[in-house]
Amino acid sequence: MAALGERAKAAATVLAQAPGAVRDDALASAANLLEAATDRVLAANCEDVAGAEAAGTSATLIDRLRLDAGRVSAMAAGLRTVAALADPVGQVVDGWVRPNGLAVERIRVPLGVVAIIYESRPNVTSDAFGLCLKSANTAFLRGSSAALNSNLAIAEALRAGLVAVGLPADALVLVTDTSHGAAAEFMRLREYIDCLIPRGGPALIASVLANATVPYVLDGDGNCHVYVDAAADLDMAADIVANAKLSRPSVCNAAESLVVHRDVAASFLPRIVDRLDGVELVGDEASRAISPQIGPAGVGDFSTEFLALKMSVAVAESLDAAIDHVNWHGTGHSEAIVTGDLAAAREFTRRVDAAAVLVNASTRFVDGAEFGFGAEIGISTQKLHARGPMGLEQLTTTKFVVTGAGHTRG
Amino acid sequence: MAALGERAKAAATVLAQAPGAVRDDALASAANLLEAATDRVLAANCEDVAGAEAAGTSATLIDRLRLDAGRVSAMAAGLRTVAALADPVGQVVDGWVRPNGLAVERIRVPLGVVAIIYESRPNVTSDAFGLCLKSANTAFLRGSSAALNSNLAIAEALRAGLVAVGLPADALVLVTDTSHGAAAEFMRLREYIDCLIPRGGPALIASVLANATVPYVLDGDGNCHVYVDAAADLDMAADIVANAKLSRPSVCNAAESLVVHRDVAASFLPRIVDRLDGVELVGDEASRAISPQIGPAGVGDFSTEFLALKMSVAVAESLDAAIDHVNWHGTGHSEAIVTGDLAAAREFTRRVDAAAVLVNASTRFVDGAEFGFGAEIGISTQKLHARGPMGLEQLTTTKFVVTGAGHTRG
Repeated sequence: MAALGERAKAAATVLAQAPGAVRDDALASAANLLEAATDRVLAANCEDVAGAEAAGTSATLIDRLRLDAGRVSAMAAGLRTVAALADPVGQVVDGWVRPNGLAVERIRVPLGVVAIIYESRPNVTSDAFGLCLKSANTAFLRGSSAALNSNLAIAEALRAGLVAVGLPADALVLVTDTSHGAAAEFMRLREYIDCLIPRGGPALIASVLANATVPYVLDGDGNCHVYVDAAADLDMAADIVANAKLSRPSVCNAAESLVVHRDVAASFLPRIVDRLDGVELVGDEASRAISPQIGPAGVGDFSTEFLALKMSVAVAESLDAAIDHVNWHGTGHSEAIVTGDLAAAREFTRRVDAAAVLVNASTRFVDGAEFGFGAEIGISTQKLHARGPMGLEQLTTTKFVVTGAGHTRG
Repeated sequence: MAALGERAKAAATVLAQAPGAVRDDALASAANLLEAATDRVLAANCEDVAGAEAAGTSATLIDRLRLDAGRVSAMAAGLRTVAALADPVGQVVDGWVRPNGLAVERIRVPLGVVAIIYESRPNVTSDAFGLCLKSANTAFLRGSSAALNSNLAIAEALRAGLVAVGLPADALVLVTDTSHGAAAEFMRLREYIDCLIPRGGPALIASVLANATVPYVLDGDGNCHVYVDAAADLDMAADIVANAKLSRPSVCNAAESLVVHRDVAASFLPRIVDRLDGVELVGDEASRAISPQIGPAGVGDFSTEFLALKMSVAVAESLDAAIDHVNWHGTGHSEAIVTGDLAAAREFTRRVDAAAVLVNASTRFVDGAEFGFGAEIGISTQKLHARGPMGLEQLTTTKFVVTGAGHTRG
């Protein structure tokens, strides 16, 4: 594992000096070679799918694992899209001159080696590589054993794309030992890994917390709320709640919980119950007294990210109570208020502690593409380094460059 | 420990909403009450010093531990200086409008609860509190057992300063259980701690890597180099090397290693050997062949942060070799080149991988105050969140505020 890390680090040193145009050429070349390798990738993927089926893997996981020609083309298109984004490297973030004449500049530079541990989707191999290369970082990838053949075939094409433009193949290093022991070792390569981004469920996060000594950014859960204020336009509120819950229930920025101000609960709840036909609603006593179609909320329902057609419902006595409810049960991801009252919007946006707070908009907008980042490596719910959707900028760090004329410190 | 964390978090919620003027009043009031408590603080400090002496603690450590009226006044002055800095909270970092009309703003907000583990200097109690309060964070502090009485007396005065302006006393929580077990528990309070900054030696850092599950920023070692290029003004180079080594050898931005281009080694080394009279020099064969006063470098000398009047010396065959030497042995802290050659300066600043790279200036300038930050909580050698001197800005995070007019995602 250390030998792989050493290769990854050596490639990062070369990448950090490669002009943006060369990195963009490598992305284009990797996209072309990936498409040209479609048959080989699909054959490898067939092996993985067959293995997963034989192992009794669930249909949902097999769907995530399975590739077809369209999905391979989509990966290639993703690489071309990333190539067209602005280069984050070399940007002068800020700069100033000190009273003694010393010039201080803060320059955006690559992190170096970005390690990513991910689960069954093989497209992450290509997506992560694209974002890392665009930001001049080595992608040091550790996928799941279920997708190993697919990942190897994809990585082979991408590495050939690097070599075709004279960049080191090791700007993409794929770990092929998919054992738990190897994962733990991977998370401790402090000498070689500058940032680890785990993309997976609670078991992976727990393993990172227990084992990792490398710096990491956690892509956390989203127990997202929509709060319908006393001053909400109820048509707007119904549209937003329906969009936040229904447009894609399985993603982290989908709403899991509805909080309604008591002054509008009697008028709003029956409407939204109809609108959310097919969604299992579980709520507190106040909501159930108004809409008996709402079932009783069990212990923990208000703190659960369902990722399914299920939603918790609470009636809040006041704006304050709603904010407290959101801060207590939320996971710091994306929280929305629907209101026409400026003071309520101000209170909610100031006091709710989350990566993103939305006013009169669906939580579903909290996403790198929707924010205009062009690409996304995840959504951070931690507060250090990156908070919210992570694009290319979050795959960089800065370096101070200080220029004097023989300055010494008194 | 969890109960302390809960108190710290509750106070952070209040602080996050407190106007900057109120936080500044609290700093002023804390400074006044700390000065007023000088006798009590010094009496407590006497107990600590007596305990340390009885335990056979080294004179250096006892000097760090010992307070006098001047040091207490300096702490109070530090609080007043921090109060006068610009408030980082609420700054709109950036903002834009998406094609669909959605407005996205990124706002600077406090981290919440900042935990600091530190060793014997009791002034850290006051300094850390000042920076945390200015940035609207709770200071959750765990000092050493040797300084416990001093820290308690200081914290009592500072907490009274908070209460005097109506802020919660728990915006400063001092952990009084100074056992190793308590430290390990402290590092795992993910529910309550938003950022941990350990300030101490290698044993503390190792303990953080082994135990911490809370997010942390490491304040690392500085094995800093000065590279004297072939195109250096040798008078300037001698001034910079002497300043970097001699002005304060015990700090992390002091130079530990001198690298000289072979073209100027014969003229520069004898001069700098004279100039560094009293410094133990250890070097490679090439340097010793020129200046026999340089002793042989032992295994590891080039990778050692001496923090003393000792320096390693190497002759580099080329600029490339010098850059490789610096990247190999350096700790990513502060690295300087002395040169009159623009191309050499460009290569060095681009390719050296460190928090700060200096051209024709002493490494000693890498410091929050010298950079104009007004205050410093440490110098980060990691790449995530903060790199280089950390001031108030590095004690904040951001929150996205997204405003629509009923926007739903298609």
